[in-house]
Amino acid sequence: MISDRLSRIRLFLTDVDGCLTDGGMYYSASGDELKRFCVYDGMGMVLLQKAGIHCGILTSETTDIVLHRARKLNLDYLYLGVGRQKDKTDVMCYHPAQGQAQQMPFMSKTDACMMICNQMRISLDEVCYVGDDINDAELLKAVGYAACPSTAMDSIKTIEGIHILNKGGGEGAVRELCDIILQAHVEHH
Amino acid sequence: MISDRLSRIRLFLTDVDGCLTDGGMYYSASGDELKRFCVYDGMGMVLLQKAGIHCGILTSETTDIVLHRARKLNLDYLYLGVGRQKDKTDVMCYHPAQGQAQQMPFMSKTDACMMICNQMRISLDEVCYVGDDINDAELLKAVGYAACPSTAMDSIKTIEGIHILNKGGGEGAVRELCDIILQAHVEHH
Amino acid sequence: MISDRLSRIRLFLTDVDGCLTDGGMYYSASGDELKRFCVYDGMGMVLLQKAGIHCGILTSETTDIVLHRARKLNLDYLYLGVGRQKDKTDVMCYHPAQGQAQQMPFMSKTDACMMICNQMRISLDEVCYVGDDINDAELLKAVGYAACPSTAMDSIKTIEGIHILNKGGGEGAVRELCDIILQAHVEHH
Amino acid sequence: MISDRLSRIRLFLTDVDGCLTDGGMYYSASGDELKRFCVYDGMGMVLLQKAGIHCGILTSETTDIVLHRARKLNLDYLYLGVGRQKDKTDVMCYHPAQGQAQQMPFMSKTDACMMICNQMRISLDEVCYVGDDINDAELLKAVGYAACPSTAMDSIKTIEGIHILNKGGGEGAVRELCDIILQAHVEHH
Repeated sequence: MISDRLSRIRLFLTDVDGCLTDGGMYYSASGDELKRFCVYDGMGMVLLQKAGIHCGILTSETTDIVLHRARKLNLDYLYLGVGRQKDKTDVMCYHPAQGQAQQMPFMSKTDACMMICNQMRISLDEVCYVGDDINDAELLKAVGYAACPSTAMDSIKTIEGIHILNKGGGEGAVRELCDIILQAHVEHH
Repeated sequence: MISDRLSRIRLFLTDVDGCLTDGGMYYSASGDELKRFCVYDGMGMVLLQKAGIHCGILTSETTDIVLHRARKLNLDYLYLGVGRQKDKTDVMCYHPAQGQAQQMPFMSKTDACMMICNQMRISLDEVCYVGDDINDAELLKAVGYAACPSTAMDSIKTIEGIHILNKGGGEGAVRELCDIILQAHVEHH
Repeated sequence: MISDRLSRIRLFLTDVDGCLTDGGMYYSASGDELKRFCVYDGMGMVLLQKAGIHCGILTSETTDIVLHRARKLNLDYLYLGVGRQKDKTDVMCYHPAQGQAQQMPFMSKTDACMMICNQMRISLDEVCYVGDDINDAELLKAVGYAACPSTAMDSIKTIEGIHILNKGGGEGAVRELCDIILQAHVEHH
Repeated sequence: MISDRLSRIRLFLTDVDGCLTDGGMYYSASGDELKRFCVYDGMGMVLLQKAGIHCGILTSETTDIVLHRARKLNLDYLYLGVGRQKDKTDVMCYHPAQGQAQQMPFMSKTDACMMICNQMRISLDEVCYVGDDINDAELLKAVGYAACPSTAMDSIKTIEGIHILNKGGGEGAVRELCDIILQAHVEHH
């Protein structure tokens, strides 16, 4: 049963661009960049954390934009620069809620997720992950509960068993899922 | 009758994110933030004030973004940092139209609304409030006229008797309501 | 005939917020503001000017944002701060294409339009104006051709004879009208 | 056959405003400008380059915004200031992937495309170009495969044989086309 699988979730992870945003990347002439997050998604992750579910962000981007957002929400985990095949860059691992940071060698999103699972002593089955593009496919197939915004790429939407949310990225898709998880927890605990 | 209740309104209060905006929060790498307001909502509150109805903003956010917007519109009241359960922060109370500011201890949105009612010597029945998420629920249930944008969270849209506006947050939902209030005032006065 | 009236147009004027934009006003904590213009509208006014039709902007706003946009498009006229009933501020009159500027006492949008008509020795009948809110109503009723975006306020859309464009403000509504005017000019000249 | 024509593509070129963006141009009072790109389009061009197809951008704009985006994606070609009839400005030719830049005299978009074709020793038949407005028409008629976003101007959508994509500019239209080209390459190679 879906609500059984949802009630088992102890870690909620999401990608950024296209999941917490609508995929828009705002550039200025001076090289600054903006991303547009959604207040509803933020509230959703705050509510999950209140319910005892750890929350984190995994992204291949390395911009401090995401760090500011993760700190605002006091998230448990933030991994920047994950899975950059092209340049095999180091990964920055933050614990925004605790103010800690650590530099790690190249790892994939699945590697990052498993590292967090080890820290939390949970299995991949207890993880929910939200992704939207091909670099999310491997992890989406590995976790206990996989979901994507309605605006995700077709190759993601066709992953077997994936939950295609009603809302698009940056429009509350993550909140939609958070509310479903919270509902399942209320019913089972 | 709805128009009777509307014609009694003497104070118009609204939340910010998701009501005066579409919920988008733009972050830069330097930590700056942007919010997108709507010209129509601004004009609506200016028209209400011309008609003698006081206008104000209540938000849990503490950013000066909202202060700039409130000053541009010359609003009567602005309460920043209201109802932050997590850190119980102080609340900044501004009177943008008069250029005054005052720091106050933690209070909920309902506390803030009642404080303004006392100053104006009016009852909660004469207040209209626009909210969109769970931290607005208590106040929405307390005021004489409760409304929410079409884009509000489901738990808000299902509050008994709430007026679900046709327009979404940041797309003129507040103006839609202002025009209805103004119409009711014209008809009754 | 509509195309007769359109072929007579020698001056094209438009409001900014809600016409050249979708009504969005982006605020930062430092008080900076952004507006989102549309590349199609810009190209439309450039094409009108190539066809010998003068183009200008009338706005009650006083921000340099609009000046930057007017300069980029090399517009013939830009009036900032027009019709601010509240503070009766001076109006800044620019001729971006010629690099000139002049400070003038308070005037309404209709005053501003008539001043340009006098300079061009044309009548209000040869003017097309695009507006979207109540402060545009007087001028929309005075000019030879009045139009509004599909996203305009209801009180504007119900002005007798107004052309309600298919597109919304900031989404190419102005370009839609420019293309119709250009077509009428091609057919009649 | 369409997939034959697509499998022959060796160079993918696109316009910026209205193709890689939704046509929005964000202006600040200090003259700064922002453009909103889409993460999906970026990934699409990265995937094309991995598959051995060169990618580039041709734009009449001269802003560094586009340079930052082209560098982020490590594109093969970027021509800024192409086809500015009005001021016949020089064109800046960048090879972001190689870090080179060169100033050239005025040229049209077709000139720029042919210059790249000569460098690559390919014909116009092996080029795919995405454009959306009248200044793209000439090149769209010259290349082997012409496409436009669903949001392109009518005069572009009616070019004979043009592929009108399902998605709009800035919403993944370029990615949609990249995926089709990649599919055709997989099938033929």
